[in-house]
Amino acid sequence: MEFAAFELTKEFRDRFQQALNERDKAFIYSSLEDVNPADITSLLSEFDSNESKFVVDLLSLQVRSRIIKDLDPDTRKNFLSVYSVDELTPIVNLLDSDDAADILNELPIKTSEEIIALLDSDLKSQVIDLLRYDENVAGGLMAKELLKAQASWTMVECIDEIRKQAESGMKFYSVWVVDENDRLLGSLPLQKLILTDPNTRVKDIYDDDIVSVETYIEDSEVVEIMKKYDLESIPVVNVQHQLVGRITIDDVVDVITEQAEEERQLMSGITEDVEEDDSLWRNVRARLPWLLIGIFGGMLSARFMGFFAQELAKVTAIAFFVPLIQATGGNVGIQSSGLVVQSLVNPNYVDEGLMNRLLKGFSVAFLNGLVLSLIVLGSTLLFFDNNMLSIIVSFALFCVVLFSSFVGTITPLIINKLGFNPALASGPFITTTSDLLGLTIYFLTVQILI
Amino acid sequence: MEFAAFELTKEFRDRFQQALNERDKAFIYSSLEDVNPADITSLLSEFDSNESKFVVDLLSLQVRSRIIKDLDPDTRKNFLSVYSVDELTPIVNLLDSDDAADILNELPIKTSEEIIALLDSDLKSQVIDLLRYDENVAGGLMAKELLKAQASWTMVECIDEIRKQAESGMKFYSVWVVDENDRLLGSLPLQKLILTDPNTRVKDIYDDDIVSVETYIEDSEVVEIMKKYDLESIPVVNVQHQLVGRITIDDVVDVITEQAEEERQLMSGITEDVEEDDSLWRNVRARLPWLLIGIFGGMLSARFMGFFAQELAKVTAIAFFVPLIQATGGNVGIQSSGLVVQSLVNPNYVDEGLMNRLLKGFSVAFLNGLVLSLIVLGSTLLFFDNNMLSIIVSFALFCVVLFSSFVGTITPLIINKLGFNPALASGPFITTTSDLLGLTIYFLTVQILI
Repeated sequence: MEFAAFELTKEFRDRFQQALNERDKAFIYSSLEDVNPADITSLLSEFDSNESKFVVDLLSLQVRSRIIKDLDPDTRKNFLSVYSVDELTPIVNLLDSDDAADILNELPIKTSEEIIALLDSDLKSQVIDLLRYDENVAGGLMAKELLKAQASWTMVECIDEIRKQAESGMKFYSVWVVDENDRLLGSLPLQKLILTDPNTRVKDIYDDDIVSVETYIEDSEVVEIMKKYDLESIPVVNVQHQLVGRITIDDVVDVITEQAEEERQLMSGITEDVEEDDSLWRNVRARLPWLLIGIFGGMLSARFMGFFAQELAKVTAIAFFVPLIQATGGNVGIQSSGLVVQSLVNPNYVDEGLMNRLLKGFSVAFLNGLVLSLIVLGSTLLFFDNNMLSIIVSFALFCVVLFSSFVGTITPLIINKLGFNPALASGPFITTTSDLLGLTIYFLTVQILI
Repeated sequence: MEFAAFELTKEFRDRFQQALNERDKAFIYSSLEDVNPADITSLLSEFDSNESKFVVDLLSLQVRSRIIKDLDPDTRKNFLSVYSVDELTPIVNLLDSDDAADILNELPIKTSEEIIALLDSDLKSQVIDLLRYDENVAGGLMAKELLKAQASWTMVECIDEIRKQAESGMKFYSVWVVDENDRLLGSLPLQKLILTDPNTRVKDIYDDDIVSVETYIEDSEVVEIMKKYDLESIPVVNVQHQLVGRITIDDVVDVITEQAEEERQLMSGITEDVEEDDSLWRNVRARLPWLLIGIFGGMLSARFMGFFAQELAKVTAIAFFVPLIQATGGNVGIQSSGLVVQSLVNPNYVDEGLMNRLLKGFSVAFLNGLVLSLIVLGSTLLFFDNNMLSIIVSFALFCVVLFSSFVGTITPLIINKLGFNPALASGPFITTTSDLLGLTIYFLTVQILI
């Protein structure tokens, strides 16, 4: 009996590494005997592929397939490369169709085709069907395993069907009800089935107000629908409205987690799916592109300021306020784009139209700009004895707030329209844009007013 | 029968608004008759509280309670303020204990206590129990409604229990198995119950390898555990290991969504839970604090550069590279903190210790710093005819990359240790810090080398 979640300590990891070095099968086997496969998976991410394989090969085929299903796709790709087709086939045979298809998608095409040819016939046809779909649509998320009952069946027939499916070890919460042409009609929750007289027919008791998705619906939309209607599983239908699969909430949780991770990376200016403990080279490569763009922007700024060398030589203090202008522009840009990304990600509201949105953004920027410029006007008048410069700085600041807010609002909308993730318009992108914009506005103001 | 998700168009919204203005009950009633309550909820977020109440009062008590449960907490707080205790009590009576407790928590204490006094006795004691917990721990997330069976029971007794609970209309997927002292032993999936001979005893077939959480476990940890073990529901136990509630995956999805939203706001430098379509004043207020901090940083920068007025007057070109230095510092800081936040949020790895982490960050920064400085050295030598300045800028840039990487790595770790959300260390916070740091390093280099 195991109740609390397993805690992976550094001590245990070190002891385990030692056992691995000594190929101490007895220690490894006994220390993993009662551990949940999900915990073994976390443990394995600490070792290299050959070490992991040594461990996994000591475990039962069931546990092996569970572990391989749980590995994160990057790790899994490396790990499975040390496996032969003959070793992989029995493992894949134990997986649900959606997990099997995901893993086959990650393998080299030749290996994947050899394995498919050797799979049990049911799983084989299911997997071949699933591999047709793009991984970002409902068809690519769904599993083929489901409980299906004809509307004309009795409860007894339903229970027989459950008995047949139960051998596969699959988990399910409802029976999907279809007509004689396999078209989806509704669902029958297991608890209703338990409580109903065995001779009742499905058509007399099933729920017909259910929500389904077509195979081509995007994964992010599936997430929104399942969240909105609080569903733990959703049936997937083809264009003829025939039931072809189902998506469960755990798949959706994975999609949400990946989306959050992708957004965080875009907002941080990281261009590859990378983690702190990935290789040095990968970390360097993931960061360089945005740094180079920033450098390019910085060089442009330097050239641009060069045009105003005379003014700067005359009034050195002009340079003092470049950081103030740029930082505020960057902050306003990030805030505006952050809020727009937010409402693009949670589309649970009626789009008020571009004009309303810009007008609202303008009003907020106008008020904030006014407050900030007055503060800057006051403090520069107090601390720097150049009244003209105080006016220039606070006026330019006001304009920068307005323009950066506009750019921060419009950029994610454009990027979204072009089909990219709007979160790209946050972090370094918006900062670099706002920096150049701020500088231009500031020096134009200098030129006009000085 | 309703299959596709309901689409809320601007046309329908406008027509609906007109019907509301005319208090056209017939139109409102007929247009909402077959609509899923979740869709009515989205529609209502477009209208004010009194209009919404007019619509909701036309609907059945079941639909009303479903809508009120689905509203987002901010909207709900306003909406419920137009309701009397007598109107609210029957609605709350239809809710699950966790939703009832959430709503009562949002109401003014006096109203909430009056409603609790009037609730059905079962729900009343459940709600009173739940209100004891903080909303960010397992006890605050859980619901009291669950199916509980003694290990000594037969399947027939279990089915009787399910029959009793079924009247409450609650959804469930497993029966939790307890001993005679209510201590959790394991679970019995509904499908196993369907397939087992009615005279079998629970103790002979239940699953004992289940994971549970204690009431005081933090919600983010509950999320990690349910994700890791792929659970659709998890039992909650007290310190005596007695079963006190259960958390379902849809609650966890809500927690994940809220966490992502909070992180996005922190990274965008927004200090209040605000959305684009919230009031103007709220939008202004949510953005001002970070803008003011940025202004303060900018004024500090201006004062600081003032100390180098002589150098600047002599070599104006020094000022040209301030944006380059600051932008790069900001970008490096955001990238480093982004990756640290990432691994703090996904704690699915062994902590390698602070030194290893800093060493890795240092190596990445060293390589990136080298590449960037060489590029800047080359291009400044080419485009600006001041060799000494080229050396100063590229050397300072190298140092800025190293220091900003250090600050970006250490800051989220410190903030996390202090018990705040590490994502706070992204966006404006890290940009402002890096700006000041970059400027200091740059001008120190100027002073030493010029």
